[in-house]
Amino acid sequence: MEENHITDGEETATKYKVTIVGSGNWGSVASKLIASNTLKLNSFHDEVRMWVFEEILPTGDKLTQIINKTNENVKYLHGIKLGKNVVADPDLEHAVKDANMLVFVAPHQFMEGICKRLAGKMKGDVQAISLIKGMEVKTEGPCMISTLISKQLGINCCVLMGANIADGIAQEKFSEATVGYREDREVAQRWVQLFGTPYFHVSAVQDVEGVELCGTLKNVVAIAAGFVDGMEMGNNAKAAIMRIGLLEMKAFSKLMFLSVKDTTFFESCGVADLITTCFGGRNRRIAEAFARNGGKRSFNELEAELLQGQKLQGVLTACEVYEVLTQRGWHELFPLFTTVHEICIGCLPPSAIIKYSLHAPTPVEDLA
Amino acid sequence: MEENHITDGEETATKYKVTIVGSGNWGSVASKLIASNTLKLNSFHDEVRMWVFEEILPTGDKLTQIINKTNENVKYLHGIKLGKNVVADPDLEHAVKDANMLVFVAPHQFMEGICKRLAGKMKGDVQAISLIKGMEVKTEGPCMISTLISKQLGINCCVLMGANIADGIAQEKFSEATVGYREDREVAQRWVQLFGTPYFHVSAVQDVEGVELCGTLKNVVAIAAGFVDGMEMGNNAKAAIMRIGLLEMKAFSKLMFLSVKDTTFFESCGVADLITTCFGGRNRRIAEAFARNGGKRSFNELEAELLQGQKLQGVLTACEVYEVLTQRGWHELFPLFTTVHEICIGCLPPSAIIKYSLHAPTPVEDLA
Repeated sequence: MEENHITDGEETATKYKVTIVGSGNWGSVASKLIASNTLKLNSFHDEVRMWVFEEILPTGDKLTQIINKTNENVKYLHGIKLGKNVVADPDLEHAVKDANMLVFVAPHQFMEGICKRLAGKMKGDVQAISLIKGMEVKTEGPCMISTLISKQLGINCCVLMGANIADGIAQEKFSEATVGYREDREVAQRWVQLFGTPYFHVSAVQDVEGVELCGTLKNVVAIAAGFVDGMEMGNNAKAAIMRIGLLEMKAFSKLMFLSVKDTTFFESCGVADLITTCFGGRNRRIAEAFARNGGKRSFNELEAELLQGQKLQGVLTACEVYEVLTQRGWHELFPLFTTVHEICIGCLPPSAIIKYSLHAPTPVEDLA
Repeated sequence: MEENHITDGEETATKYKVTIVGSGNWGSVASKLIASNTLKLNSFHDEVRMWVFEEILPTGDKLTQIINKTNENVKYLHGIKLGKNVVADPDLEHAVKDANMLVFVAPHQFMEGICKRLAGKMKGDVQAISLIKGMEVKTEGPCMISTLISKQLGINCCVLMGANIADGIAQEKFSEATVGYREDREVAQRWVQLFGTPYFHVSAVQDVEGVELCGTLKNVVAIAAGFVDGMEMGNNAKAAIMRIGLLEMKAFSKLMFLSVKDTTFFESCGVADLITTCFGGRNRRIAEAFARNGGKRSFNELEAELLQGQKLQGVLTACEVYEVLTQRGWHELFPLFTTVHEICIGCLPPSAIIKYSLHAPTPVEDLA
C-alpha cells in the first residue's frame, strides 16, 4: 500500500505524509481522525503510518501485526476501526523516515528518549504537533513538551489540546479541539485540516504555551475535583475548586510565559477541557477513590490496581508544578496546586483541598 | 422579640436592621445564613424579618404562623431550622418599614408589583441587594432587576450571585458567592459580612451588571446543556456547549454594558455558577426531559408536571434575551442564545443546539 503512494510521480512533492508517534488510546483515536481525512484531501498522502511500541499479546500475536491485519488497535481502542490506510510500524526510525508531518502522542515520560533516537534523522521540511500533556522540570526551569521536541529535533512544533476525552471521539460524538501555534498560521491551518471532521471541530490560536499549559495543568485541577467528589462535598464546592483551579492555571501560565493570552482560557483547551476532565476523566476518578479511602491507600497503590501501574498524569504534573513553585518561591501564590501535591504524597489529608485552596492570601487574579 | 431591639437605646442608630423580601427556597436559605450572622455581629440587629407571601397549608395553618412557631419554612425548605431570630411577616409594607438593609429574593416576575407597592415607603438610608435572576425587557431596552429596584425605590442596589444551589448551602456544604456593587465598597463589605460564613465564601467585585448578567444568562446555557444531556451526546459536546455559552454570556454582557469586566467571568458568579447550573440545576433537568421526548412535550406541559406550573427561569430568560437580540439585529452574533429560544418554542428540534450553535459566523470573542 505504501509503495503506491511513494511512487506517485510528480504529485508526491506537494503531498504531505503523516506519521503518528504513539499508539495508545488517544494516539489510536488520532490516527482514525487523520486517516479519514488523508483519504479525502488531495494535499495528503492516503497512508498514515503509526509507530507502535511492539507488544506481544496474550494470543502470542504481535500488536503491530494484529493492527495491520484487522485495522483495529485491539489493546488500546478495542472495537473501533482505524481505517485501512493506517499502517502500524514497530520501527521508530523507519516510521518517521519519509514523514513531513509528525504527530507526537506518546506518554510524556518517554519523550526524551524518543527525541534522542530521532535527533538528526528528520527531513528538513518536517512539521510536528504534540498531543502530549505534561512538562519536564529541570534545574534550569520547566520545559514544555513542544519545546523539547522543537529543541531536540530542530523542528517547529504546534500543539493540539481540548475537551476531547478519547472514547467520545472514537464513537464520533461531537468534540472540539484547539491547535496552538507559534508563528506560521498556514501550518496551523494544515493541522486543522488534518484533524478536523464534522464531529471534531478544531480551531487555531497563536499561543502555543497557553494551549499546552491548559492541557497540562487541568489534570492537577481534576485531582482536586476528584478529592471533592470523594468527600461528597457537592457541586457547589466542586465548582468552586474548578474555578480556583482555572484561576491558578491562568496565573501560572502567564507568570511562566508573558505571551500567554487570556482568551486562550475560553477556548476548548481551557474551560471546556477543564470541565470534561473534572467530570469524566480518570484523574478525577482515581483521586475520588483516594479521598474515599481517606488517603489511607496511596496513589501508587491505586494506580497499580486501577491503571495497571500506569502513572496518573495529574499526579505527575502536580509534582512537576510543585518543583517549579519551590524553585521560584511561589507556593503561597498557588495554594490549590501546592495542596494537591501535598495531599498526593500523603503530607496532608484530602480535606485540606477546601481548607487551604480557598485561603489564598492574595487574589491570584491580581498577579497575572 | 422585635421590640427588644427596636428599643435598644442609643445603640440602635448604628445597628442595621435586615428584611428579606421573599421566602421561597433560596430566600429561606438566605434567611438562615443572615440570621446566623446577625446574632454574632454587633453591627446588625439580631432580628431578621422575612416577608412571606401568605399561603394556607393543607393543614389549614398559615405559612407565616408555622414558620414563626417552628422556625422552619415547611413548604420551601423542609427540615432546616432558619434560626429563632427570623420573623415571618405576611405584610410587605410592615415588613420593610424599619429595615435599612433589604434583601430581594422574590420571583422576578413579581418584582415590578413589589416595587410599586414599596415606592415612597422606604427609609432614607436603605441599601438593597438583589438575589434575583432575570431581566425585564421593555420597548426602550432591557432593564436588570437591580436597576428596576434602584429606579423605582430610589435606593442603591447591589447583587449577590454565584455557584450556590440552595440545597447544598442549606446542608452547610461549602459554596462561594459574588457580590456585585456599583461604587460604594463599604456597603459591599457590609453585604459580604452579612452573608459570609465559614461554609459560604463571599467576595465583592465592582461590576454590578456583569455579576447580574452572569447569574441571569447562565440559565439559558443550562437549557442548552440539558438538551445535550437529553440527546446523550456526551461530556465533550456538553463542555463545548458550555464553553460557547460562556463566550456568548461574556460578549452579550459587554455589548450591553461597556463597564462589564472580563475578570467577573472568573468569579463564582461566572464560570463556577455556570458549572453547577449545567450539572445540578432544574433548568438543565427539565431541558433534558424536553430533549428526551424529542421536543414533543412542550415546556409548558413539562413545567406543569415537574414544577407544579412554576415557569422555568432559563426559558423565560431565553425569551427575554431573544427579544433583545431581535431589537438590536444580533441573532447571528449569538447563535446559541438564539437557538435555545427557538427550540424552547418548538420552531427547531433539540438537535439544532449543536448544529447551529457551533456554526457561529463570527468568533464571538472578537466582538467583545
